[in-house]
Amino acid sequence: MKIIIYVYDGMTMLDAIGPYEVLRNMTDAEVLFVAEEKGEIKADSGFIDINVKYNINDINQADILVIPGSSIAFMKEIENENVLNWIREVDKSTKWTTSVCTGSIILASAGLLSGLKATSHWKPINLLSQFNAIPTRERVVEQDKFITAAGVSAGIDMAIYLSNKIVGEIETRAIQLTIEYDPQPMFNDGNYLSADDEVIKLADKKLIREAKKELGLLGMLKNSKNILKILK
Amino acid sequence: MKIIIYVYDGMTMLDAIGPYEVLRNMTDAEVLFVAEEKGEIKADSGFIDINVKYNINDINQADILVIPGSSIAFMKEIENENVLNWIREVDKSTKWTTSVCTGSIILASAGLLSGLKATSHWKPINLLSQFNAIPTRERVVEQDKFITAAGVSAGIDMAIYLSNKIVGEIETRAIQLTIEYDPQPMFNDGNYLSADDEVIKLADKKLIREAKKELGLLGMLKNSKNILKILK
Repeated sequence: MKIIIYVYDGMTMLDAIGPYEVLRNMTDAEVLFVAEEKGEIKADSGFIDINVKYNINDINQADILVIPGSSIAFMKEIENENVLNWIREVDKSTKWTTSVCTGSIILASAGLLSGLKATSHWKPINLLSQFNAIPTRERVVEQDKFITAAGVSAGIDMAIYLSNKIVGEIETRAIQLTIEYDPQPMFNDGNYLSADDEVIKLADKKLIREAKKELGLLGMLKNSKNILKILK
Repeated sequence: MKIIIYVYDGMTMLDAIGPYEVLRNMTDAEVLFVAEEKGEIKADSGFIDINVKYNINDINQADILVIPGSSIAFMKEIENENVLNWIREVDKSTKWTTSVCTGSIILASAGLLSGLKATSHWKPINLLSQFNAIPTRERVVEQDKFITAAGVSAGIDMAIYLSNKIVGEIETRAIQLTIEYDPQPMFNDGNYLSADDEVIKLADKKLIREAKKELGLLGMLKNSKNILKILK
């Protein structure tokens, strides 16, 4: 079972590591982290880099493709034709093509989610409609062979859902026990639809501050159309 | 707010990345990944390396120390006096010293959890008593300034618990929304105390297979006393 996780500068680490930690526990799983160019790939935080051994010219087929999201770097990826072409190519070979967080916006920009329901991080989810996908506020959305997950931590739920399809219930339950996934969220604010307004406003502020930090003034201007759509 | 996450060859990635992704979202958080020697640090899966910029000689103080766990590599760390001395030194400066999974066994072996309750991954949790800590099957255990978490994914809950103590409820709820932590576990087997026997047996098999793969026959013999304790 060959699993490609596409990684890129500015991605959100947990988006990749959540699904990886579930899927790599499937018997016979082989996980390959693949970037446009191999070497150091920096997370959005600036605090951690991973070391990537494969570039997109090395590998173009997989059973499962996972596209993680990012705070803001996905905006660069949705215009990167080199990567989008590779995603389309890999997708031809996959049994499942999946995403976490804003990874779905990358899949959609590759034209793979046209006319399909998809989910994404609660903040930029409406950008999906720009690429003819149908934004759907659920944690995990399955449509044909595409499985998209909501923001960041939702990748764990997506991968368990996918593992259940591939290796069945008993092995998936054993994986859930192996990673001791018995979540006990402290608050009820993990979901946009049930979070308090005050909490949403503060999370909004955090996300906008992060976008400003990463894009700078020039980047904010360049991406102003999309940013305005996200802010709506 | 200076946060050190100690990393080492063979660690479980989600153990580190779960807490990191919560704590780095606290305003003014600075997260430093620190290894015994800087450079590539390999995860237990063999599928991913991180690139570490600081070694233990560079940094010996922090507000928060996080010790991630590992499938089996923790057995090497609990005998690594160089690292244990550094952990004792950093601990002198921390407001909070924390662990995920078998990271608590490393803290205990440094002598920091003597007489204190602590949790760990369900499988090797009883090893804690070898170092005079009191094994406690809870997801997050707070004792004095030590907060230990159960296996792998429990680090997310631990970090939210800790964030709530440091930056308060509203900011922590906004962080929970930012990472969309609204977990929807597919099965009820994430907890050893409620998982089915069949599922426990299969997870056991997976963990033993992983230990054999990582330690080899020689390593299994060398660590046989501890391994027998884990198998009990």
